[in-house]
Amino acid sequence: MAIEEFGEGSAVNFVLEAIETKKRGGELAEGVIRGVVAGYTEGSVPDYQMSALLMAIFLQGMTYGETLALTRAMAGSGETYSFPDCVDKHSTGGVGDKISLTALPIVAACGAPVAKLSGRGLGTTGGTIDKLESIPGFSVDLSEERFRRQVEEVGLAIVEAGDLAPADKAIYALRDTTGTVDSLPLIGSSIVSKKAATGAGHLLYDVKQGSGAFMKTPEEARELSGLLVRLSESLGIRASAVITGMDTPLGSAVGNALEVRESVRLLRGDAVPRDLADEARTVAAKLLELKGEKDPERSVEAALSSGAAYEKLERFVRAQGGAANALDNLPTSGTVREVRAPRDGHIAGFAALDVGRAALALGAGREKKTDKIDPAAGVELLAKTGDRVQKGDPVARLHGDRQAERAEGLILQALRIQDEPPQPAPAILDGL
Amino acid sequence: MAIEEFGEGSAVNFVLEAIETKKRGGELAEGVIRGVVAGYTEGSVPDYQMSALLMAIFLQGMTYGETLALTRAMAGSGETYSFPDCVDKHSTGGVGDKISLTALPIVAACGAPVAKLSGRGLGTTGGTIDKLESIPGFSVDLSEERFRRQVEEVGLAIVEAGDLAPADKAIYALRDTTGTVDSLPLIGSSIVSKKAATGAGHLLYDVKQGSGAFMKTPEEARELSGLLVRLSESLGIRASAVITGMDTPLGSAVGNALEVRESVRLLRGDAVPRDLADEARTVAAKLLELKGEKDPERSVEAALSSGAAYEKLERFVRAQGGAANALDNLPTSGTVREVRAPRDGHIAGFAALDVGRAALALGAGREKKTDKIDPAAGVELLAKTGDRVQKGDPVARLHGDRQAERAEGLILQALRIQDEPPQPAPAILDGL
Repeated sequence: MAIEEFGEGSAVNFVLEAIETKKRGGELAEGVIRGVVAGYTEGSVPDYQMSALLMAIFLQGMTYGETLALTRAMAGSGETYSFPDCVDKHSTGGVGDKISLTALPIVAACGAPVAKLSGRGLGTTGGTIDKLESIPGFSVDLSEERFRRQVEEVGLAIVEAGDLAPADKAIYALRDTTGTVDSLPLIGSSIVSKKAATGAGHLLYDVKQGSGAFMKTPEEARELSGLLVRLSESLGIRASAVITGMDTPLGSAVGNALEVRESVRLLRGDAVPRDLADEARTVAAKLLELKGEKDPERSVEAALSSGAAYEKLERFVRAQGGAANALDNLPTSGTVREVRAPRDGHIAGFAALDVGRAALALGAGREKKTDKIDPAAGVELLAKTGDRVQKGDPVARLHGDRQAERAEGLILQALRIQDEPPQPAPAILDGL
Repeated sequence: MAIEEFGEGSAVNFVLEAIETKKRGGELAEGVIRGVVAGYTEGSVPDYQMSALLMAIFLQGMTYGETLALTRAMAGSGETYSFPDCVDKHSTGGVGDKISLTALPIVAACGAPVAKLSGRGLGTTGGTIDKLESIPGFSVDLSEERFRRQVEEVGLAIVEAGDLAPADKAIYALRDTTGTVDSLPLIGSSIVSKKAATGAGHLLYDVKQGSGAFMKTPEEARELSGLLVRLSESLGIRASAVITGMDTPLGSAVGNALEVRESVRLLRGDAVPRDLADEARTVAAKLLELKGEKDPERSVEAALSSGAAYEKLERFVRAQGGAANALDNLPTSGTVREVRAPRDGHIAGFAALDVGRAALALGAGREKKTDKIDPAAGVELLAKTGDRVQKGDPVARLHGDRQAERAEGLILQALRIQDEPPQPAPAILDGL
């Protein structure tokens, strides 16, 4: 009834038409989706209409065609880039996730160029840009010309994403406060729209699954992986996905400089936890496979054992302003405290979200976008899943002086100790 | 996920909790509903969260308990009155609906006091307050003391409703622009919350059904009637409902002074169309029945044939400032044009919505709340359903000088002429 009271042809009409269609379970035409997205981005569609539409979408779902149209409209809502020869990866967000810092230098060393536009962290999820900024002198802000030249000359460049897919940014902020985040078509279109705007021709999605991830079950993770790959391919991007575990943090380090240091260890051939080593290798190999590499696992091993991957990281850091020995002079915290096992037993893991919250409390992340982070802050896990510990053994080291008591409580809450040795879980759960 | 990022105890939390619960198909606790309504009314719950919740309610529905809690919360959100001995009626909105002007003087003449707080018209639906204001000198604005005294002394008083159920007003305005109007629990709670705030102890709902009404089908009308009566009874109001037809306008007159004039004719015993005469009598009898009257039809006939109902109307008009002969000096329009039958045949009716739009075009109503109306403007139907007409016979008279061409087109579009005599339809379709 209400819709006929309005004039025709405006963005408000598109959104009212969209609401009426979607609430009755119909399919939105591509033109309507484009009109709504354009209207919301320019401000002529008010938040309260957009949130009603988002809730209707949440409850009624979207067809693949609608999801693709939404992805395309959001991808094209701001600046777009084109790097058809380049590879990139996207993680749905985990604690201690340093795969960009490790897998990308490997693939670059293998000859696959990487042009990455990345973001900062918010909440318990870290961001590659924050991690790179913990490297002394490193700049995440290059001109487009310098960025392109570095991609050509070094084969690896990572800068902070500017106004990519502003429609997605605005819609995401609204979803976050209206209970419409956990909708598969909305999650999928949000992720792919941003990646499509960055223009990489070959994309690997690292979909995290587990108690510390957005996707809790294998079914959800598989469904999201399938959607991300399908949307990307529809937009002309070669894409695949891996599903990786996120019950417990990846590797030992959680926090910006701490994670860079652990990445350096992996690329230098020093010992790192198995889950991190496995996942970095798998992601690198999958990226090379997307570029048509015949024996990607062998190339990955060669890049690691020859030191080429580490050299690539060093060259990349120098190219973006880092000092020659920057990677050996990462910031450290003046305040370090150890957390000790409260009883004997086997470590069954650390709940990823609580470890993320502990790192956040110590200053490694932001609760609000405007918070300032401490690059040296974070958590080092001294024991990994399967380790046998005795009461009083140190199980974690806390770096940073903000809310250290709270962080310790969170780590003790995160820690799972049991009498029986736990079942080993693979780092890579699934892929497509 | 999003909800845990917020602090606890605020109105924003109530609305986020409500959104999460409702989107998963759960039932909202009464305290949550109260918190959301209070927060939205005071402005701490933003429109975009409220509209997301309304869409979730639209699509997931509400239990009777939730609907009652919402009704109660909205009813108590502003001023409330108490007139436990009084009767009142509510119509869901029709074209040419002058039942308040006719049935209420009848019941007041039969000894059932009426204390009515009423509203203005918007769009194609008229409002009793606008109709009364077309009477020279009539005031719709009395002090509460004078209003109460008039109810006692005259037995009939009608004033403009002030800030009744402000929560409903705010929520309705939001629903109107977010595609969430046509939801049974939201419609029911909106109607009953306003009526409960006016405090009449005995309420008759006149639910319109047909192409010109909000309820298109007998099922919808019956469902709404049942809900209105049940909610009212739960709030301690004696209530019943009639379902009346609204395919074609009620009676002949559509427009403020025109409708008052037709009401005067009915109460004076002059001829009026059968549908109007039947419906006014039925509503009056049903209202008396709610007051426990044993033979209400007989009382209604006596009040009409004795002239008591008309005397009551006159006394009421004088008490509210009308001149002694105001009802014989209603405003008339200087511009009148006739619409003629385009062909021979039987009148099968005038589509109510188009007639309403024609009256609106002539100045009888408001497109926007701030529009000024012309009290003399409107449409008089000169032929009623079942009449046989010849090409060129006048079928309607247009009063008013605004958009007369457009109004004529709408009347011709509204007019249904057919070769066979139409099936007669009763004015009263159903009741409970």
